[in-house]
Amino acid sequence: MILVNGQAGDTLPVQDRGLAYGDGLFETLAVRDGKPLHWDRHMARMAGGCARLGLPAPDAGLWLAEAHRVLAGGGFGALKLILTRGVGLRGYRPPLKPEPTRIVMGFETSDPPAAWSEEGVEVCVCQTRLGRNPALAGIKHLNRLEQVLGRSEWQDEFQEGIMLDTDDHVVEGTMSNLFLIRDDQTLITPLLDQCGVAGITRARVLDAARALGVSCQEARLSVADLFKARGLFLTNTLIGLWPVRRLDGRELPRHELVARLRRALSEGVA
Amino acid sequence: MILVNGQAGDTLPVQDRGLAYGDGLFETLAVRDGKPLHWDRHMARMAGGCARLGLPAPDAGLWLAEAHRVLAGGGFGALKLILTRGVGLRGYRPPLKPEPTRIVMGFETSDPPAAWSEEGVEVCVCQTRLGRNPALAGIKHLNRLEQVLGRSEWQDEFQEGIMLDTDDHVVEGTMSNLFLIRDDQTLITPLLDQCGVAGITRARVLDAARALGVSCQEARLSVADLFKARGLFLTNTLIGLWPVRRLDGRELPRHELVARLRRALSEGVA
Repeated sequence: MILVNGQAGDTLPVQDRGLAYGDGLFETLAVRDGKPLHWDRHMARMAGGCARLGLPAPDAGLWLAEAHRVLAGGGFGALKLILTRGVGLRGYRPPLKPEPTRIVMGFETSDPPAAWSEEGVEVCVCQTRLGRNPALAGIKHLNRLEQVLGRSEWQDEFQEGIMLDTDDHVVEGTMSNLFLIRDDQTLITPLLDQCGVAGITRARVLDAARALGVSCQEARLSVADLFKARGLFLTNTLIGLWPVRRLDGRELPRHELVARLRRALSEGVA
Repeated sequence: MILVNGQAGDTLPVQDRGLAYGDGLFETLAVRDGKPLHWDRHMARMAGGCARLGLPAPDAGLWLAEAHRVLAGGGFGALKLILTRGVGLRGYRPPLKPEPTRIVMGFETSDPPAAWSEEGVEVCVCQTRLGRNPALAGIKHLNRLEQVLGRSEWQDEFQEGIMLDTDDHVVEGTMSNLFLIRDDQTLITPLLDQCGVAGITRARVLDAARALGVSCQEARLSVADLFKARGLFLTNTLIGLWPVRRLDGRELPRHELVARLRRALSEGVA
């Protein structure tokens, strides 16, 4: 079942600003035993995105009630929420009193091969770059052409591609955040003040690492930093944590902290 | 009437990638006496956008037949075409064989005050910046949050806002392209190799100016260049040409070439 503004249905008006301009936000949540995981973190990110875009944030209780209605059907491994500024007049000017569109969709998921979590994945560095704009950095908005172009650079020969910004900084994967372990055992993830999505699992990894006494930093990273790392891994809500085994064809070292963090995540430490 | 893939209707599936990622393109055409103007230029820009995004370009004859069906109802001053990569699986990866969504919509328009074309408009410089990314520069794609945020900075006190990129270069208006006349009588418009939309009216102005023997240049411009200009004006398909009378509260000089170019445009020289 899909709910659009609380009504069962699977269409929206072609005049919706979500289509016209990507004027909105989304969240993808993992579902276990019929329950969406890390609900409060996702709601907090969406509320933050609403504040940045000047969108009225829907009541979190309304979202949750609708999520439960959709998940009651059973069989879903993921839940997607979309919020747009709703139907608008022609032109970029936002309506003074927008009537946002709320979409709640369940998805079936198939588990990726266990080896990807345990042994690691093969990853490329994408040619497509991320533009830098602090106004849109960090939030999960609907303007995702850069990710689409990045993901279109390979088919099945890699499990993920790493994207740099137009100034050659490493930012994230097309659908994941990225971490590395430096020589001094510090856990480092790219700063997301210019572009990128501040992932929920990224935040959970930082919390879990601090709980384990690991020193953490957000920093500007280059591709060379990735190749010098003691360990490299990717995170997202649905995959959890994937170690990177091979980057652009070069073997990367394995680090015991990666497996520890993966266990901490799956045990729900954060 | 609205046509979605050739069928009368005004909705699209919530799984459309146009909504999920802004994965598509659009065109807005002026309509006069029931006919879309500068059709071939708009089709050429859309075909160029399709090539950049790896989207199969629909047959221009099909678009035109659908445009005529929509316009047959009469009363429209503008036509909007939207092309998306269609319904896709969850995830950024584009389908190998996409089935694009084609939307054709007519719009009623109201003529802006004649004084805006004749005497000029008041314009601000927006705080919101445009991110730089050559992969998306020039084409009219559906990722328009920057324009939405730019346009949300004022209500009715200005007629347009000028946007800079994150490196402080002047790029365009939120919904228009920009030209200035330099001391040496050269007509200059910003280079659009890093961001911005290569407008159809922008191209027509360059053609008209060259036909009048005016020297033209695309260049990187700063806000200081705007204040030093002998004349400044904005163009878009629906407004035609608006001289800028006042920029951030400062009066700007008028230049006779601006009125000449406006006449050339309205006489259909280009």
